[in-house]
Amino acid sequence: MHDFDPGYGREPYAGLVRSYPGAETYPAEDFRTEWGPVFHRGRLDGTARVLVIGQDPAAHEAVARRILVGAAGRRFQGFLAKLGIDRSYVMVNTYLYSVYGQHGGVAHSHDPVIAAYRHAWLDALTTDNQVEAVIALGSLADLAWHAWRATPAGTGYAGAYRHLLHPTYPDSAAATGADPVKAMARLLGDWNDGLDALHGVITHPDSPRPLVHYGSELTAADLAAIPEADLPPGLPAWMRSDKAWAARQGATPADKRATIVVTVPPDQRPS
Amino acid sequence: MHDFDPGYGREPYAGLVRSYPGAETYPAEDFRTEWGPVFHRGRLDGTARVLVIGQDPAAHEAVARRILVGAAGRRFQGFLAKLGIDRSYVMVNTYLYSVYGQHGGVAHSHDPVIAAYRHAWLDALTTDNQVEAVIALGSLADLAWHAWRATPAGTGYAGAYRHLLHPTYPDSAAATGADPVKAMARLLGDWNDGLDALHGVITHPDSPRPLVHYGSELTAADLAAIPEADLPPGLPAWMRSDKAWAARQGATPADKRATIVVTVPPDQRPS
Repeated sequence: MHDFDPGYGREPYAGLVRSYPGAETYPAEDFRTEWGPVFHRGRLDGTARVLVIGQDPAAHEAVARRILVGAAGRRFQGFLAKLGIDRSYVMVNTYLYSVYGQHGGVAHSHDPVIAAYRHAWLDALTTDNQVEAVIALGSLADLAWHAWRATPAGTGYAGAYRHLLHPTYPDSAAATGADPVKAMARLLGDWNDGLDALHGVITHPDSPRPLVHYGSELTAADLAAIPEADLPPGLPAWMRSDKAWAARQGATPADKRATIVVTVPPDQRPS
Repeated sequence: MHDFDPGYGREPYAGLVRSYPGAETYPAEDFRTEWGPVFHRGRLDGTARVLVIGQDPAAHEAVARRILVGAAGRRFQGFLAKLGIDRSYVMVNTYLYSVYGQHGGVAHSHDPVIAAYRHAWLDALTTDNQVEAVIALGSLADLAWHAWRATPAGTGYAGAYRHLLHPTYPDSAAATGADPVKAMARLLGDWNDGLDALHGVITHPDSPRPLVHYGSELTAADLAAIPEADLPPGLPAWMRSDKAWAARQGATPADKRATIVVTVPPDQRPS
């Protein structure tokens, strides 16, 4: 049997998905609007106990049409598992569309029109679920959360909140010259602090587990698989695997922006 | 506002989608099982009046996760429009997975295990809808229909039935040396015969229209757009456009089988 995400048939999500903003709200010079919005991952049935705010969808997410399914997703899925949360979560992003260019994300971090639609989702999710903890991944998600907290609906939230370093922080730090080992150790130290802060406030875990911290290196045991129940029906299992399977490709920036190559990982091909 | 296909949340479709067969039923040497099954396109809410059986999903369908969304889909959508059917249809394929190789489709045309799951869908669709006409696209779909008609449930079907040449018949005929102009004329003649047979039996069209035949050439007016309501939410409009946007790529047969390149059509890129 193959579990799957039933998607957005239920209100208020059906209405939210019907009314998504486009390039009039997300300027195409700063966002890859041409790939369409990617809305969420996780439960939309009112059973979420943890609400997660990520940043923006990348190439894998543009194909799987759910957020946080690539390497970042598997790392963070492991964090949730350490909290005993295997299915009772829902994730949305700061931005519906993939950020294009280095400054697009920051430039729009206080954009009220972009925030309005995001706030409608946060209103819906905090009303529809008994949220015990909100987790923001990265500083843009942290800003998004605080913007919502300043709204009338947001002031009513009474659960826990934690801002974590983004799961791909070590990768982006290394890309700008940082020591990758130290960057990973910094991520894991930050996440250990987050575990300490959150483990006790998750009073309805899916599987109660004693708190186990990360070491200074990320191990295979620290990752968790993206559940089949999180993706649309029929998507192959390798779209949830630990191998990269989607990449932008092109000789020019315009072609690279317009092209995603989807490749079945070699070990998942028919023999 | 953006309409979208709410998908498979409703029974019996949720159960059908959970229990799809894999490589144990569809041998990987004859089917691209590694890309996952693609189930349907159209209404799953009981409002379909026309039931369509196609052949198998190709590259576009593997990404959009709905069947008949490429060139074949737009041609056939135009045929449905001539019948006054704009939304009251549902389409399934003979095969859940893309046929690999020249003979895979024919080799499994009488496979009882493959048929069993297809029959479960046909049982569900004919029970759930007041179907006035069934249309099979191509000879494999025709075989699939007749196999179901021989089942206990199938003998009870009392509506019309028409086997049409597959919408890409002219392309495949031309690829094997036929005159493409004559091949297209043959398709359109066959479809005109189909219009004559079916126009009168569709007693609940979405938009009643006088019967307008095809000429000897397919014109732009003969095509119809894939409705936004047929695709999962958030998919960009160019995934329903008349431009090809998905292609297999690879230097070896194995690499080509494992790779789909998705390219935003040039006229749909941000300027």
